[in-house]
Amino acid sequence: MSNDYVKMWKDLGLDIDAHDALLGVLGNAYTDIYLAQKNRPEGMDYFNFVMSEVHGLRIKELIDEKAQGRKIIGSYCVFVPEEIALAANATLIGLCSGADFAMEEVEKYLPRNTCALIKSAMGFKLGKVCPYLEASDMVVGENTCDGKKKAYESLGELMENLYVMDLPQMKSTQGRALLRAEYERFKDAVEALTGVKIISESLKSAIQTVNAKRSALHRLAKLRKADPAPISGLDALLANQVSFYDNPARFTESVNKICDELETRIAEKKGALPEKTPRIIVSGCPMAVPNWKFPWIVETSGGVIVGEESCVGERGCRNLTDDSGESVEQMMEAITDRYYKVDCAIFTPNQDRLNHITEMVEEYQADGVIHYGLQFCQPYLMESIPVEKALEEKDIPTLRIETDYGMEDVGQLKTRVEAFIEQLK
Amino acid sequence: MSNDYVKMWKDLGLDIDAHDALLGVLGNAYTDIYLAQKNRPEGMDYFNFVMSEVHGLRIKELIDEKAQGRKIIGSYCVFVPEEIALAANATLIGLCSGADFAMEEVEKYLPRNTCALIKSAMGFKLGKVCPYLEASDMVVGENTCDGKKKAYESLGELMENLYVMDLPQMKSTQGRALLRAEYERFKDAVEALTGVKIISESLKSAIQTVNAKRSALHRLAKLRKADPAPISGLDALLANQVSFYDNPARFTESVNKICDELETRIAEKKGALPEKTPRIIVSGCPMAVPNWKFPWIVETSGGVIVGEESCVGERGCRNLTDDSGESVEQMMEAITDRYYKVDCAIFTPNQDRLNHITEMVEEYQADGVIHYGLQFCQPYLMESIPVEKALEEKDIPTLRIETDYGMEDVGQLKTRVEAFIEQLK
Repeated sequence: MSNDYVKMWKDLGLDIDAHDALLGVLGNAYTDIYLAQKNRPEGMDYFNFVMSEVHGLRIKELIDEKAQGRKIIGSYCVFVPEEIALAANATLIGLCSGADFAMEEVEKYLPRNTCALIKSAMGFKLGKVCPYLEASDMVVGENTCDGKKKAYESLGELMENLYVMDLPQMKSTQGRALLRAEYERFKDAVEALTGVKIISESLKSAIQTVNAKRSALHRLAKLRKADPAPISGLDALLANQVSFYDNPARFTESVNKICDELETRIAEKKGALPEKTPRIIVSGCPMAVPNWKFPWIVETSGGVIVGEESCVGERGCRNLTDDSGESVEQMMEAITDRYYKVDCAIFTPNQDRLNHITEMVEEYQADGVIHYGLQFCQPYLMESIPVEKALEEKDIPTLRIETDYGMEDVGQLKTRVEAFIEQLK
Repeated sequence: MSNDYVKMWKDLGLDIDAHDALLGVLGNAYTDIYLAQKNRPEGMDYFNFVMSEVHGLRIKELIDEKAQGRKIIGSYCVFVPEEIALAANATLIGLCSGADFAMEEVEKYLPRNTCALIKSAMGFKLGKVCPYLEASDMVVGENTCDGKKKAYESLGELMENLYVMDLPQMKSTQGRALLRAEYERFKDAVEALTGVKIISESLKSAIQTVNAKRSALHRLAKLRKADPAPISGLDALLANQVSFYDNPARFTESVNKICDELETRIAEKKGALPEKTPRIIVSGCPMAVPNWKFPWIVETSGGVIVGEESCVGERGCRNLTDDSGESVEQMMEAITDRYYKVDCAIFTPNQDRLNHITEMVEEYQADGVIHYGLQFCQPYLMESIPVEKALEEKDIPTLRIETDYGMEDVGQLKTRVEAFIEQLK
């Protein structure tokens, strides 16, 4: 790494030794898991570059934006509307929570029986290894699950700029009103942070930018209907992961370029994995960078992932925001409508999610569903039982797995996944 | 048990063999834990009788009420306003969730890593052993924690009469509006169930009935300030537990009678346990009948419990409802105000609870606090860490324990509790 980056990281207050160690692990994992894949689309070179510069060039861009007076907003959840941040001339980035870090310190703040994602978010703060978090002028927490809701109380003690967004638990008149009011409050907070008043032009433009990004991701998703799948699940997941922190316009262009290439590959019947490879939908908890463990297991065990029913996947990108409104008020309503459709397991009841999983199986011609649950993630683990029942009633083979970010269970998981895929052939 | 009861249980659809087994365990536990205590107030004879008839006479009373057209509403949470049920001529009862039952069946519906209280509620339904549940014309679930919220989705498939109440997660304008709207919706549902329109007279009378019950419980609580404590923590807990399903007027009278007796005992310096016994506040998760394990451990390990900072304790009974309103609307506002003060760990932030624990330590002259957490109860386990930190900053000795309804950890818990109490002497 260049010395410029080291100075930048030091200026952000990172623990350089710990950060070096993290980057080392990340680099090795990327080499072993991503670069080891065969038949990748050429367009993935963009993501290879992005990943090689994940804490370098992209952070430098953010620092440069900050120097020009732009504010950086970090978030942990797909309920935080990027449209509002962009409209106020701020940059929204998803924060790292895909690896174990500083676990001994973390367990002074959170019970051991907390899910890996939440522990990771806390560990990255305590370990001072996340330049995105340290570059953020405002960090947005949100009341999704109990685990996150209560963890933000402790995280808030470690940072001065944590803003907590409340969220509904039911899709009701009051639930929607709460979401609408919270988005208004968020808009006010972002405007106060940036000093930029959101106007109809800026909001419309922001909606269009985010729609274009989501459309590109969805275009990529739909190309995976082909057999052979033109791109691996690992690579498609990476695109979804990078969408959370890359520059939106550049990201959209890069994904569309990959999509052009994938169309050619489909016409040539060229796949990332061979034709007739058993096709899997992975459904459940989000996989944040560098949590590539489970898709790596699936795609080295005889399967190909053709869809992610996850926040880092379809749940995050499938619905667009209506951009036809003329006033800020109309567009704020449209934003609320769009996010209100997110079928997170924190909602009760959550029939939409179940319907969507079934739709994905049909649309992507999947042979089976693996429900991916992080240990101690109550909403998704609890919902996985009715999901499995409903899918099995439709004769869709389903496997429920529960894991964390550790590598201890890889052998056991691989055995289960191989056996599951074998039955799909 | 009389044959009348057996017929009644059969008519309710109970599994008689399983129910016999449950009553056997319950009876033995009561004998070993409650009747084995020395120096109990004579007034506890009422509760001995109530417990000996817990699935007998009280159920017969409910069946008789039903025969006269009164409706029975079961609930699992202190957020369900008894005032509204009573005002519509219905009886509200708390439902059993204090013992493991039918665990193999339960784990087909809920993940193993679900708290004992939620598993118990499901097990009592699947095992067909709870006459209160089977006698209920309406069962009210509520969106408190993720575990309960998602469990009601599965429980709802096993019963036709489940009603789910939404609850806020933050004390905000929108949060209070949600609670107010949900209480109005509950009022409508109860009126529809009973066919009785709630009017100002009936609502005022219901508020007064519930206030009288809570005042009696709080009178009992305050008498425990004395040293020696005139009543054991086990007995005080039992009064709180029974308050959830006994006839309110009779219960209030019986508790007040015990309070009269306790005043005499205090004047005579007569205690349930000796003077200078280390005094403990137990804070955290609720203990439903017959979950007496932890207070039994404390009070056979050299301590006396002088207060329960719990839903089955102060959190459930400490605030009264203003009964001065003249209209139904005014009193519904007062009910909302009263329940809005409940400092459950589902709220974020929840500083009120922390303040209240400290107040209780001072008020009841406690020597230390034990935080009682049910394994996998995320809200209370997560909140226990800041609770412990805050109390230790005030030099209040604190012990955090995490357990379930099983007996496997009794020896280990007893060792920890004894060591903690030893340091308080």
